[in-house]
Amino acid sequence: MTNPQVKPVILSEQVQTTLTTLEPLTRKVFLSLTPPSPRDNRADVDQVRQMLERSCDNVSVPLSLMRKLPSLCRGADWKVTATLAEIGKGWKLIELEPGDTTNEQFGLAIDIGTTTVVVYLIDLCDGKVLNHAAAYNAQIIMGEDILTRIRQALEPGGLDRLQKAVVETLNRLIKDLCPLPRETQKITAVAIGANTTMIHLLLGLNPASICRDPYTPSVNNPGLIPADEIGLDINPLAPVYCLPSIGSYLGGDVIGGILVSGMHKKADVSLFVDIGTNGEIVMGNEDWLVACAGAAGPALEGGVTAFGMRAEPGAVDHVSIDKATGQVEYTTLDNKPARGICGSGLVDTLAELFLDGIIDRNAHFEKGRESYVIVPAKETALGEDIVVTQIDINNFMATKGAVNAATDLLMENVGCDWQGLSQFYAAGAFGQYLPIESAITIGLYPDLPRSSIVRLGNSSGEAARQVLLSRSKRMEAEAIAAKVTYFELNANTTFMEKFRGSKFLPHTDLARYPSVKIR
Amino acid sequence: MTNPQVKPVILSEQVQTTLTTLEPLTRKVFLSLTPPSPRDNRADVDQVRQMLERSCDNVSVPLSLMRKLPSLCRGADWKVTATLAEIGKGWKLIELEPGDTTNEQFGLAIDIGTTTVVVYLIDLCDGKVLNHAAAYNAQIIMGEDILTRIRQALEPGGLDRLQKAVVETLNRLIKDLCPLPRETQKITAVAIGANTTMIHLLLGLNPASICRDPYTPSVNNPGLIPADEIGLDINPLAPVYCLPSIGSYLGGDVIGGILVSGMHKKADVSLFVDIGTNGEIVMGNEDWLVACAGAAGPALEGGVTAFGMRAEPGAVDHVSIDKATGQVEYTTLDNKPARGICGSGLVDTLAELFLDGIIDRNAHFEKGRESYVIVPAKETALGEDIVVTQIDINNFMATKGAVNAATDLLMENVGCDWQGLSQFYAAGAFGQYLPIESAITIGLYPDLPRSSIVRLGNSSGEAARQVLLSRSKRMEAEAIAAKVTYFELNANTTFMEKFRGSKFLPHTDLARYPSVKIR
Repeated sequence: MTNPQVKPVILSEQVQTTLTTLEPLTRKVFLSLTPPSPRDNRADVDQVRQMLERSCDNVSVPLSLMRKLPSLCRGADWKVTATLAEIGKGWKLIELEPGDTTNEQFGLAIDIGTTTVVVYLIDLCDGKVLNHAAAYNAQIIMGEDILTRIRQALEPGGLDRLQKAVVETLNRLIKDLCPLPRETQKITAVAIGANTTMIHLLLGLNPASICRDPYTPSVNNPGLIPADEIGLDINPLAPVYCLPSIGSYLGGDVIGGILVSGMHKKADVSLFVDIGTNGEIVMGNEDWLVACAGAAGPALEGGVTAFGMRAEPGAVDHVSIDKATGQVEYTTLDNKPARGICGSGLVDTLAELFLDGIIDRNAHFEKGRESYVIVPAKETALGEDIVVTQIDINNFMATKGAVNAATDLLMENVGCDWQGLSQFYAAGAFGQYLPIESAITIGLYPDLPRSSIVRLGNSSGEAARQVLLSRSKRMEAEAIAAKVTYFELNANTTFMEKFRGSKFLPHTDLARYPSVKIR
Repeated sequence: MTNPQVKPVILSEQVQTTLTTLEPLTRKVFLSLTPPSPRDNRADVDQVRQMLERSCDNVSVPLSLMRKLPSLCRGADWKVTATLAEIGKGWKLIELEPGDTTNEQFGLAIDIGTTTVVVYLIDLCDGKVLNHAAAYNAQIIMGEDILTRIRQALEPGGLDRLQKAVVETLNRLIKDLCPLPRETQKITAVAIGANTTMIHLLLGLNPASICRDPYTPSVNNPGLIPADEIGLDINPLAPVYCLPSIGSYLGGDVIGGILVSGMHKKADVSLFVDIGTNGEIVMGNEDWLVACAGAAGPALEGGVTAFGMRAEPGAVDHVSIDKATGQVEYTTLDNKPARGICGSGLVDTLAELFLDGIIDRNAHFEKGRESYVIVPAKETALGEDIVVTQIDINNFMATKGAVNAATDLLMENVGCDWQGLSQFYAAGAFGQYLPIESAITIGLYPDLPRSSIVRLGNSSGEAARQVLLSRSKRMEAEAIAAKVTYFELNANTTFMEKFRGSKFLPHTDLARYPSVKIR
């Protein structure tokens, strides 16, 4: 990993599907060609194409490969391995190597988050993850949230700077995974899960319309793009496939989450939630899917609390408070002296404060108290008390309230009630690191049987792996994108009403949280 | 015309087919798009693609166009014109313009000869030739004939120099035809007729194997190549289609000749001959086609005679000799003082010398004579007599003998005799400028009824125009390429025997030339 302090959300083994049929974006074919003779003096390129067309329809050969093909075939005693990419209704030759290299075929599954980028090196022969690397998205220095980045993109040269920044991050991670250029040349396919803005910035597409009414992206389904047109340091003709998005605020990362959860194939209704820099909520089953999205604010990423920080060494990640003594027990990441509180620490803290009665159902401290000390100054790396303040709690409650309100709105719209919910899928860091019981206590997760709560892990990365490896998964992702009905929250007055009424712990409707008991 | 002294072989009106259905390599579609609204906020690229897919299957949009599409649509009030290229079994968007520009659509039909390059500017809306320009192939300074160029290509950096030279020639001609860059951007399709080596050098493909046993080209059918990969200064994504070749010595120019002649659709047997720097002979009908080819030597291009020159101003192009007085009458190109003799002048000279009995059936002067004065020194621009020597005549007879021998060989092989021949197609300069009667007299043309002798003109350029404009003509050209049986002359001992026995005027078999009468 390039950035040791970056904790990538790993692929959840719970959802890592074993694909029965591998149909990767690119495939290799070993060719034992006929050396030209007076009896068979077909042109070299034509012979290769004819042989490939025995198994693949309509093969085209780009000029760059026509140029190297004849000498390569002669130097390899007419035994070569072709790499083909499926393009539309035909195939394109994208690489030719001497000898039989059919067992050396690599691809990348990439998750581009607004904050973190993860690259998985995949063996296209068996679909396995060989290695992965993660780093912060270098665009961060140009703005932490999506709207700031879009504004930056509209400045002169801004789009170009943002595009180069994320490509540099990717190329650095690729180099970590494959230090030798001849290895990176063997990477011949890429699939990417990312939100719509991240895809626009990666492709150098102007994101201006994304944040302006009526919120139309430049493209939802970019198709296959050769890697060199984006600037990725791998095989230049490697096709890059982006998971399709549905609109400006519902990207391929969410489509990927649905794909990985399998909720679109179940008879029962499931709820999918991913809360990062943005929040997305999807509800549905095999017949219907509804979704909404909005900026979540950085409540869970340590952005608004006084001592908030990302999940880096020294972050308080778990907290318990003894009701009798008020004594706080906590752990920090890597056991380093505490420097702040990350999302999971904050969720634990709020749950404990609530269960101990230190904050009430409105999430307010008793009169007179403005904060609660989690780590006393002498134990910190900062030299001052690490506290949670009423303002921190209020900010967090806004995020939580928005999630509750949005979920309620979707339910109401589809006429589904809380009891009808069979599964809860928590994606990304929101699913990976939050303490389940605390998240239920404060109403961030629904109070379902614990076996119905599934942490998806990096479902965007896992979805990228699946579509990299499987044509039917690519078709499934596109079918999901075509099926989702999107609810625009910004324009919805019901949402605002629900939002205002949803700032209670664990929920406005206590009946939904039977297992939450004040100590 | 860039090079005023270059006489391009013009398209023969006799064979300039009016295509009933225009299906050019690229087509334009006017789109009146729906401005995005909250009720229809599809992504811009997706909307364009969906609209195009109403009439064209499987449309892909390259990244470069995705980048400019959103702002272009907005700036054009959502009324735009798309240019699509047919690629394999789908279509590729290659240009997008504001407004309705469907009546402005241009293509290039190009004939790349070893010596001369001709570019025709074609209106893709009606198929007409708007203008043309011709120049010497700038590769000439690196060698006049094909073998020298191939040797040059094998020198370090040689292939690159040759590639750049012909592209520079083309770009200069394109600039002559369309001086403004915004005009050249409107050129969105190119079709090329050329011999196999010229295609290799244009595409930057190593031609080494072309001249080495077993004479395999790198490619016979390169498919569609984007113009910018070759370096043409037109729309960068414009598809470039090369007429398919059959092998190293039978190129797309000859396939084009067959296509234009229509001999592949006739019940009767025809003979097609093109003699330039190389010579190609094709015989056949709707059922079969046989062909052979070889280096013709520059006999007809003024390269071997003492006073030989290309058809430039001052070249003696017509000659008659009074039998009684021996007085020579001649004309020169542009009526400039004589500087040498071009192909047509030489053919006339030999015919007159033969008819007047100055040379015998073996093409020998009477004993003691070594040359014949065509233009006395005082009338020339050189200050010395312009003469034809016995050595000149011998060189010419070698070329003529090769043509006769090759034709005889083809006939023998297919069991067709001279009487069975219904049409004679003379292509290129060989067909355009040679005096018919003299060419028959010396046995270069067959002695057929004059109405059966068809001068095709620049059949390579005309074929390029036809495949540029018509999908069925492209398929027809490819079907011709698949149908021709090629006879390898170099390896053929019968040919060498026939060649040795064929150096008679007008022909070894006098019965074939009933209309040739010595004066």
